Amino acid sequence: MAQTTPNHTQTVAGWAAHETSGEITPYTFKRRENGDTDVTIEILYCGICHTDLHQAKNDWGITTYPIVPGHEITGIITKVGKKVENFKVGDRAGIGCLAASCLDCEFCKSSQENYCDQLQFTYNGVFWDGSITYGGYSKMIVADYRYVVHVPESLPMDAAAPLLCAGITVFTPLKDHNLIESPRKKIGVVGLGGLGHVAVKFGKAFGHHVTVISTSPSKEKEARERLGADGFIVSSNPKQMEAGKRTLDFILDTVSADHGLGPILELLKVNGTMVIVGAPGKPLELPAFPLIFGKRTIKGGIIGGMKETQEMMDLCGKYNISCDIEVVKPDNINEAFNRLAKNDVKYRFVIDIAGNSSNL
Amino acid sequence: MAQTTPNHTQTVAGWAAHETSGEITPYTFKRRENGDTDVTIEILYCGICHTDLHQAKNDWGITTYPIVPGHEITGIITKVGKKVENFKVGDRAGIGCLAASCLDCEFCKSSQENYCDQLQFTYNGVFWDGSITYGGYSKMIVADYRYVVHVPESLPMDAAAPLLCAGITVFTPLKDHNLIESPRKKIGVVGLGGLGHVAVKFGKAFGHHVTVISTSPSKEKEARERLGADGFIVSSNPKQMEAGKRTLDFILDTVSADHGLGPILELLKVNGTMVIVGAPGKPLELPAFPLIFGKRTIKGGIIGGMKETQEMMDLCGKYNISCDIEVVKPDNINEAFNRLAKNDVKYRFVIDIAGNSSNL
Repeated sequence: MAQTTPNHTQTVAGWAAHETSGEITPYTFKRRENGDTDVTIEILYCGICHTDLHQAKNDWGITTYPIVPGHEITGIITKVGKKVENFKVGDRAGIGCLAASCLDCEFCKSSQENYCDQLQFTYNGVFWDGSITYGGYSKMIVADYRYVVHVPESLPMDAAAPLLCAGITVFTPLKDHNLIESPRKKIGVVGLGGLGHVAVKFGKAFGHHVTVISTSPSKEKEARERLGADGFIVSSNPKQMEAGKRTLDFILDTVSADHGLGPILELLKVNGTMVIVGAPGKPLELPAFPLIFGKRTIKGGIIGGMKETQEMMDLCGKYNISCDIEVVKPDNINEAFNRLAKNDVKYRFVIDIAGNSSNL
Repeated sequence: MAQTTPNHTQTVAGWAAHETSGEITPYTFKRRENGDTDVTIEILYCGICHTDLHQAKNDWGITTYPIVPGHEITGIITKVGKKVENFKVGDRAGIGCLAASCLDCEFCKSSQENYCDQLQFTYNGVFWDGSITYGGYSKMIVADYRYVVHVPESLPMDAAAPLLCAGITVFTPLKDHNLIESPRKKIGVVGLGGLGHVAVKFGKAFGHHVTVISTSPSKEKEARERLGADGFIVSSNPKQMEAGKRTLDFILDTVSADHGLGPILELLKVNGTMVIVGAPGKPLELPAFPLIFGKRTIKGGIIGGMKETQEMMDLCGKYNISCDIEVVKPDNINEAFNRLAKNDVKYRFVIDIAGNSSNL
């Protein structure tokens, strides 16, 4: 069932899943009129996040069908409401995971909207007016300007799209731990996928010694030669894990597959911190001893607030950081989903919503 | 086999376990002469820590028999070496878990000796001279003064003994998180045993709102009325756990039994921190979602450094904080072990080594 909210009068062409197969098909729906605090964006590109796959298939049991996924959106502003600040028609804009928050709590007031308990997401959320939110697998979106960021001129719009989710997810933990343009530290990145490869780029751009920790020895060459990683540890290799003990100041764990935390924790120095941004379905195994004997810290985090999202985009512009992507046509979303389910992508699929890329 | 080190010439009466039954029997052994940096202490009291039980039975597979347990020691200094600073004969002294460290690494230099990788413990350790260390279940001990603290005059020597391990274990996390004589926070203490009851006392002395989280509804009256806890949550009661969600700034988890961390994490506010000081044998179950969606932190820690141990003792003197104990005769150590294994103690057994207590 589509929108019933009165002012939802704009017809939009998009792509949706309608049931638990998760199969994506063309879907025409309505969006709200552009309100006073809204901007309307013609969508150029939308990244395919693993979350899209989970939600399309209702893996988490919270999907409202039909679902229009997509929260890694870049496009051009075509309309601005009269109370909109800082945006004008023609601006290059990005939208990530957030569609609404209360704007009044301690988290909203400190631009940690992502922890507001009234937070609503860009798709499969419930907007202020009671309507279900539809994401970026669509030609156009209406968004409150407070959840929109500028995309620097120096960044390609396709490769910038995944920064809005994958990028901010790994940026915020680095920022929280004073690892942005800060003294050189030894950092580890667990998992070299959509999130991990951006984390390596950030780590190198900010001057750190970066070690990739992966189950796949085959990724070493790429990690070192193309992404510039300084170290590579195969997590299933006991010798390498032993040699790496107590060597890292900070670890970012981007892995969503089930995995034990003990051996990875041992790689941290005393007082070291590991941040988990992947979200395995089953509880992680956390042995107490490496935590206790090393006074180590495990921390969680989900995406970031709007202020730090803009800060990240600006730094990406400054350092020319964007994602390594494979661009696909809207017709090929299902194929991309299938490949993503097998982690067969380097490193993120991006849908060419507007049909700008000639070679897909 | 006892000491073979040449200068171990002092005969000491003590109590030891000789095999994996963990049964404690009288045992006479040798200690080293009092060296230049040593103090000799006539032991008055020694607390019984759960670790003693594990080590006596070789539960962790690292016990060297015969083992003389005990690392919660109070007594009177009877001899000081010529290079000893700050101690004199007649001083009331305490010894905790640490017997030696390298004195040269970054941790030793910052008085975090407890994280020195050459750390040796008060019993079942290997001292600098190659001898096995014997703990406080004995009439006398020789200790390097750098691992000895003063016991304030205002504290009873028996009830002060468990501060040297149980006390410092819960004090250090509070100090690390700026919860000592600091602005009032809402803190939770999981488990009301040897560690937990001291944590509640610290929390109240330092002006915080303290909630006990326990599996035992029967402990509520005691927690509130005698220890002064402000709140009590039965962790098996879904309603109480639901009502407690996002209410606490900080949680100290003192439970050594296997338990899931997810429901407890949910009690923390966004950005809240939980410190684990209990050490379950099996890995803890850590669901990623409460960690990620609440940007929460889990941290480990083991005891504390010498400087903070003295600071804790001084604060205990200032606030009249000591442990709630049951004093037992050396003849009754095995009975105490049996009761401790069933958590049948309020809240710590202390052995009256010197026979000063009339009513045992």
